[in-house]
Amino acid sequence: MGLFSKDIQTMDDLYLHTLEDIYYAEQQIEKELPKMIDKASSSALKEAFKHHLEETKGHLERLEKVFELLDEKPQGAQCPAIDGIIKESEQISKEIGDENVLDAALAAAAQAVEHYEMTRYGTLIAWSQEMGRTECADILKQTLAEEEAADKKLTQIAEKRLNAA
Amino acid sequence: MGLFSKDIQTMDDLYLHTLEDIYYAEQQIEKELPKMIDKASSSALKEAFKHHLEETKGHLERLEKVFELLDEKPQGAQCPAIDGIIKESEQISKEIGDENVLDAALAAAAQAVEHYEMTRYGTLIAWSQEMGRTECADILKQTLAEEEAADKKLTQIAEKRLNAA
Repeated sequence: MGLFSKDIQTMDDLYLHTLEDIYYAEQQIEKELPKMIDKASSSALKEAFKHHLEETKGHLERLEKVFELLDEKPQGAQCPAIDGIIKESEQISKEIGDENVLDAALAAAAQAVEHYEMTRYGTLIAWSQEMGRTECADILKQTLAEEEAADKKLTQIAEKRLNAA
Repeated sequence: MGLFSKDIQTMDDLYLHTLEDIYYAEQQIEKELPKMIDKASSSALKEAFKHHLEETKGHLERLEKVFELLDEKPQGAQCPAIDGIIKESEQISKEIGDENVLDAALAAAAQAVEHYEMTRYGTLIAWSQEMGRTECADILKQTLAEEEAADKKLTQIAEKRLNAA
């Protein structure tokens, strides 16, 4: 969550701001993934990033649907957490010469991104259920399942790479 | 990971820098948790944070043991990711008036921290196993289990709070 123009007084406010936080995060990830695809050497890693870029576009559409269900306009709230995770990924990429080591670092960075998304979607789903927003919960659960699958896929790719090395 | 004084060329370098990254992150969390204990209203949440502060001290000691096994001096590498996650937590806390809403936000922020740690420990454990560093993997697994338990505990507290509300 970022710098808000108004105070957060109710769970409705907190829910909306968390939604704006993850909407901003997904937008940043959509911008970052093409750079990661370019930097990756292994075809498996490139494919995983490409697949996740397509999924990310779907995640943004699902978030827009949730905003609509709340009668709110989709907008992002600047999120220092995802900015920090992406900054760290970019910094370390610049330090690495060897392509296999770079792939390992890129996969680890992507998993940090996935985990950030998993925690925010997990929180929003829990709040949705408790607030009786069943339809929102169902939409967000689809995305959470894709984030978890993307994280597992990256673990498998890392294991194969290391076993081969 | 942060700004490094030397290039990262090998998996050994990447492993060491990731260790320095999580060491820095644990140090920041050790500084942040007392503030979160002060801000929390629910006794269950305060207790969970206090318990995790004690665990965090143990995590730092375990990391020092891993540095020792590698014949390296324990040191942190500035980590924009954890800095961003903590900044976000502090920003949102300032925006919230109601104590129940603040508790929800604090628990969500702590879960974002746990997830960041889980992804870094998960990566380090996978690399340890593949690099034949069994003893390091065993030490890091103990911490990962505690981070996962802390995350689950926060989910349970959040569910109880929302059910009561």
